[in-house]
Amino acid sequence: MKKLLNQPDTLLTESLQGFAIAHADIVIAETSPRFVRRKHIANHPKVALVSGGGAGHEPLHAGFVGQGMLDAACPGQVFTSPTPDQMLAAAESVENGAGVLFIVKNYAGDVMNFEIAAEMLEAENATVLVADDVSLPADHSTGRRGVAGTLIVEKIVGAAAEQGRDLAACKALGEKVCRQTASMGLALSSCTVPEVGKPTFTIADNEVEMGVGIHGERGRDIVPMASAETLVQQLTETIDRDLSPQAGQKILLHINGLGATPLMELYLVFDIAAKYWQQKGIEIHRSLVGNYTTSLDMIGCSVTVTLLDEELIALWDAPVHTAALRWGC
Amino acid sequence: MKKLLNQPDTLLTESLQGFAIAHADIVIAETSPRFVRRKHIANHPKVALVSGGGAGHEPLHAGFVGQGMLDAACPGQVFTSPTPDQMLAAAESVENGAGVLFIVKNYAGDVMNFEIAAEMLEAENATVLVADDVSLPADHSTGRRGVAGTLIVEKIVGAAAEQGRDLAACKALGEKVCRQTASMGLALSSCTVPEVGKPTFTIADNEVEMGVGIHGERGRDIVPMASAETLVQQLTETIDRDLSPQAGQKILLHINGLGATPLMELYLVFDIAAKYWQQKGIEIHRSLVGNYTTSLDMIGCSVTVTLLDEELIALWDAPVHTAALRWGC
Repeated sequence: MKKLLNQPDTLLTESLQGFAIAHADIVIAETSPRFVRRKHIANHPKVALVSGGGAGHEPLHAGFVGQGMLDAACPGQVFTSPTPDQMLAAAESVENGAGVLFIVKNYAGDVMNFEIAAEMLEAENATVLVADDVSLPADHSTGRRGVAGTLIVEKIVGAAAEQGRDLAACKALGEKVCRQTASMGLALSSCTVPEVGKPTFTIADNEVEMGVGIHGERGRDIVPMASAETLVQQLTETIDRDLSPQAGQKILLHINGLGATPLMELYLVFDIAAKYWQQKGIEIHRSLVGNYTTSLDMIGCSVTVTLLDEELIALWDAPVHTAALRWGC
Repeated sequence: MKKLLNQPDTLLTESLQGFAIAHADIVIAETSPRFVRRKHIANHPKVALVSGGGAGHEPLHAGFVGQGMLDAACPGQVFTSPTPDQMLAAAESVENGAGVLFIVKNYAGDVMNFEIAAEMLEAENATVLVADDVSLPADHSTGRRGVAGTLIVEKIVGAAAEQGRDLAACKALGEKVCRQTASMGLALSSCTVPEVGKPTFTIADNEVEMGVGIHGERGRDIVPMASAETLVQQLTETIDRDLSPQAGQKILLHINGLGATPLMELYLVFDIAAKYWQQKGIEIHRSLVGNYTTSLDMIGCSVTVTLLDEELIALWDAPVHTAALRWGC
């Protein structure tokens, strides 16, 4: 394992220290318990958005804390759920009279810990569960996993909260975005968790992990290495079957790098996916290409589609000022 | 070699097609000859900024085309200079009465081809040569290489051009930023050029390439693998000796990923570098952390420092709207 670090067990702390210095105009990083919150809390009641999850997916979630998106995020250790006391402290620090909306990726540990935090929190609160990974069937025993679609939920609901929507409306909006969002990924390599020091899984030079999760979990199956066209089509077809967009539908197309994939290749993947839907008469109305929901140093990518309407377009376009997404301010 | 591509020789074309679809609101990609230009040319005379270089460094340079930064960029094949006819066509397409400033990284092929294009261009023009890699001595036979400091020159001069400064003033400003900017990188792995199919260089598991160039060129020497603290200090000390900032100096600190380094590690590198200068009484006044001047899939990073004054801070903060850098609009 060759990584830029001092000790595996200090990586998260030191990385968050750097993050807090680099973005001192946007965030404050608390250490005991550990969470990142906006530097400037709204001076009027506003639904507070709190998310979190294991580290290793940077910039998700701390990179999305700031005006127009999250109010706070709780990082756990690499690929490990944060604890309820982190979530509770984060929620209490940003709640200012309009309640808390927890945005939770569907993993057993995250779900359980956020449930405990929600019960402990005295303020009014609600939860949106993100489960956008369509590589698994909708009736999978533990449900579908939450992957790169999460940031789209956070961006759109973040904009609505900023505009003053109440807790019930924010929750309903988040669930609407979830229904209209589907993702699927593939990996050419495993990632290596620093504390473990060796790849999480092995994959042959002539194989691709299709439907991979963002922690390297197995997805649908292993397929032969092939051209990008052939591989990406397996992602787009699965997403298309799930969302069934009709001709004329406007979509947000998000190509996410899993950490070690060159941007040049991600734009090639975008080209393939965009043309797949354009040929069906779908309009690529908004786009996002880059490393946003990563899996440490994994080589691979995911494709995410959100079906847009005028409401979602306006909220996606609304000003946002975070470390990783910024426009309009 | 496992990469997401169809054929190595179609990667650049297909990737640029995806780029043009994803950022159709900002850019237009021309194909014969190949260059990327702003969609909206200023309707008043404005110095046109044109850059370019081999592909494989994405988002540099096409990702920096747009309001407040470049007017056009010419991508060559991977790690290969674009040709003079690309540069000439790009310059002619964006020149609108105030002349053209070429921003050129110091590599023999780029320098020669931009010189030919400059001679062929009928419009008034000038060139800023970027040579910020201080891993080589200032009197190196071919001069120092242009690396991650290039985007800082492009951002600051781009803002000045947008504000109406004339060609001579833009060139002088660019040269000032170059004098006040220093970079140095290290690599834990080689990159793999798609057309070649195998790593550009070999490096042992217990070795680090110190002072690496953005094409995998040798820098200063090979050093033993060590903690991030030990490795990054070799970068910060070399930069510090070159720029000799005094206590109280404000700096822009840019940590650049070379392509396959997790963001979590880049923020750890930022933490180490920031504290190095903070302990000397230097103020980390602006920051930029991420993959901006990459070397395909190389694992590694570079540190760049620019000495700031009020003029440069205002120009850095000025609005920019490109695929890869965006704020204030």
